[in-house]
Amino acid sequence: MLPPEETAYTIAQLSEQQQTRMLSQLATVQPELAANLIELFADDHAADMMEELPAEAAAAIFDEMDSDDQTDVLSELDDEDIEAILRQMDPQQADETRQRLQYDEDTAGGLMISEYLAYRKDQRVDEVISDMRANADKYQDYQVLYVYVVDSREHLVGVVTMRSLLFAPPDRRLMDIKLLDAITAPVDAELDTLEDLVDRHDYAAVPVVDADSRLVGVVMRSAIKTAISERSEENLAKFGGIIGGEELRSMSLNTRTVRRLAFLCPNIALFMISVSVIAFYEPVIADIPALAIFLPLIAGMSGACGYQSMAVSMRELTLGLLRPHDLRRVVAKELTMGAINGAVIGIVIGLLAWTMRPEAQRLGLVLAIAFTINCVFSVIVGGTLPLLFKRIKVDPAMLSGPVMTTFIDAGGFLLTLLLASAIML
Amino acid sequence: MLPPEETAYTIAQLSEQQQTRMLSQLATVQPELAANLIELFADDHAADMMEELPAEAAAAIFDEMDSDDQTDVLSELDDEDIEAILRQMDPQQADETRQRLQYDEDTAGGLMISEYLAYRKDQRVDEVISDMRANADKYQDYQVLYVYVVDSREHLVGVVTMRSLLFAPPDRRLMDIKLLDAITAPVDAELDTLEDLVDRHDYAAVPVVDADSRLVGVVMRSAIKTAISERSEENLAKFGGIIGGEELRSMSLNTRTVRRLAFLCPNIALFMISVSVIAFYEPVIADIPALAIFLPLIAGMSGACGYQSMAVSMRELTLGLLRPHDLRRVVAKELTMGAINGAVIGIVIGLLAWTMRPEAQRLGLVLAIAFTINCVFSVIVGGTLPLLFKRIKVDPAMLSGPVMTTFIDAGGFLLTLLLASAIML
Repeated sequence: MLPPEETAYTIAQLSEQQQTRMLSQLATVQPELAANLIELFADDHAADMMEELPAEAAAAIFDEMDSDDQTDVLSELDDEDIEAILRQMDPQQADETRQRLQYDEDTAGGLMISEYLAYRKDQRVDEVISDMRANADKYQDYQVLYVYVVDSREHLVGVVTMRSLLFAPPDRRLMDIKLLDAITAPVDAELDTLEDLVDRHDYAAVPVVDADSRLVGVVMRSAIKTAISERSEENLAKFGGIIGGEELRSMSLNTRTVRRLAFLCPNIALFMISVSVIAFYEPVIADIPALAIFLPLIAGMSGACGYQSMAVSMRELTLGLLRPHDLRRVVAKELTMGAINGAVIGIVIGLLAWTMRPEAQRLGLVLAIAFTINCVFSVIVGGTLPLLFKRIKVDPAMLSGPVMTTFIDAGGFLLTLLLASAIML
Repeated sequence: MLPPEETAYTIAQLSEQQQTRMLSQLATVQPELAANLIELFADDHAADMMEELPAEAAAAIFDEMDSDDQTDVLSELDDEDIEAILRQMDPQQADETRQRLQYDEDTAGGLMISEYLAYRKDQRVDEVISDMRANADKYQDYQVLYVYVVDSREHLVGVVTMRSLLFAPPDRRLMDIKLLDAITAPVDAELDTLEDLVDRHDYAAVPVVDADSRLVGVVMRSAIKTAISERSEENLAKFGGIIGGEELRSMSLNTRTVRRLAFLCPNIALFMISVSVIAFYEPVIADIPALAIFLPLIAGMSGACGYQSMAVSMRELTLGLLRPHDLRRVVAKELTMGAINGAVIGIVIGLLAWTMRPEAQRLGLVLAIAFTINCVFSVIVGGTLPLLFKRIKVDPAMLSGPVMTTFIDAGGFLLTLLLASAIML
């Protein structure tokens, strides 16, 4: 078999129909291989491929997947498709999966796996080791860095490391060698909380408990890091105007077109707001047509300044160095910077205008002043907008850009045309 | 002590001088605490703070850091600063660090740690276990998921899992219980190769070997995932026009201003290229001033279409589903999509123009045709530009946006004004 990156690349080149045919055939003869292939793809992409399969074939593949990958991919499907697939699966596994599907993807419940070792607290070290030996085959795919210790009602009472199991006398009971300060995560713990937990304690896995403190799963440090890495990559795509960050070119033309238009159409409305400022001042343009050259320049350069400030805010938010209520700090830090950069670039633009259109007197002055003011406005809008979106619980990656552009463009057009009509006419 | 995210946030609120004073004081009394604090920050931010410290204080802190964090932060400093700090450190550790600094940050050499367990192949299981017991304190911070087996010349000959050490008879030699197919990474292996390696084999750590197959370190899966996530986040900041993706608002005003201007100034030149198209057609604007309203709309909406296509290409490149030579595939996939979305949005823009300026006959038609053609052009430029930059080994995150905007704006202005002068005058 090819190395995985080659396989993924090769499959991505196939049409949707070819992918479906290949997976349907594999599902009947080698479901485990099909599951490994599916796991190579991003969740949304994998879901797109599974959606096209007959429920029986999909169920055969899902049966072979790790529980967290299974939930990730299933949760991207429609409710109907999910039920059709679950009905074809092993009933007990289907019930467990149904349970896990209730949790949000990027929470402890959504990221946890069910393949872990849990033993009762009164079991002895040698009992545990002989169970591990006896079931070596079954536990082969398990994460066995820790053994979880539970009481008779499945409440987590401690954790035993493989290392302490290795060093303990065979007749000791688990409750006597367990770590006392076992950290746990509630099923609804969010991604950033989980990352913080594993980073702080340097643990490879965190046990997950429900509201009654019952052990329900284990989240691996690697699953947390992978989810964070996927979130960052999706944010980049959202920033570029891809809803959900989820388009891939192997998806159908119809899906891709509709999704892109769903972002573009509201954008037309936003642009209409800013260009209506120019419409209002059309007589000024008729008098000084050279303004038409510089309006896109003022708007574009202001936009570049705004995006820089927005990028810094989004990075500081991710790193936890900035919080949604720190508006004053952002404004203070951006104000001076915006004034300096605004004046520098404003003067350059003014000189360029004066060189290009020396006959349009005071045009350079108008542009220099308008740009300086609008640059201050732009860096403040760009820096604060992601914070404001966070405060109202809206994902800043998707909306900050277009909304900021509207404000910045409108500001640039208004300042330039207002000053031009005041100073130049 | 506060939880780490609180601590990081609190420190980020301090001015540079306050941070320096706090760290200098901590370095003398509690260097380990200072090291833990520094490790909370992104590498570039941590380096900024260390740079301000006296070399002696910095060395005291570096001495307490994990080897991979140490290298990451040091590599952000100037060569002179690095030497000044290394001279103050324990000579043996300084030599090891100097060695590691030769590797690129995002390669196996840059990501590996030196805290791992290696034993000679003829050692027995009980010898290993008693060494581990005897040195439990020293090994406390070690990654002990695997024991590495080397021959007399430090060549890696195999890996033993903690689990097999647990199950093996005490008198067996390591060479008899080692895994035969130990995977290794060369010191210069790149990030994507490393990710692929750990994902394919589901290993928590990969041993790193030099050109002579000597074991030189171990890269943890979590270090790989963290580096990938940091790279995505830096890409987002670069995409927003922050050079190196590295600005934080706690840096000095001077650094921030100069860095932002270094990106903005070349942008003025790029914008001058596109707006010079309008300058060339200024007489047409004088005749039809309503065009000034719609030029920014055409350019802005085309830009939004181009950014979507660029975002998909960048994501597919990251996921390994697209390669720098796949230009034809991108063009084929974007062509139809661009034509459909271009026509849909072109008609909307045409109707809006006709509603707003019914007296400007054929303006709607001009805009609809110009936008449709420019949208096809935009999605093709946006989709292929990151591939072209990759082919010439230029980081696409930083340059793709501004260069694309220049092409798209110039195309939109040219098509609209050319058609307007042909059809409307």
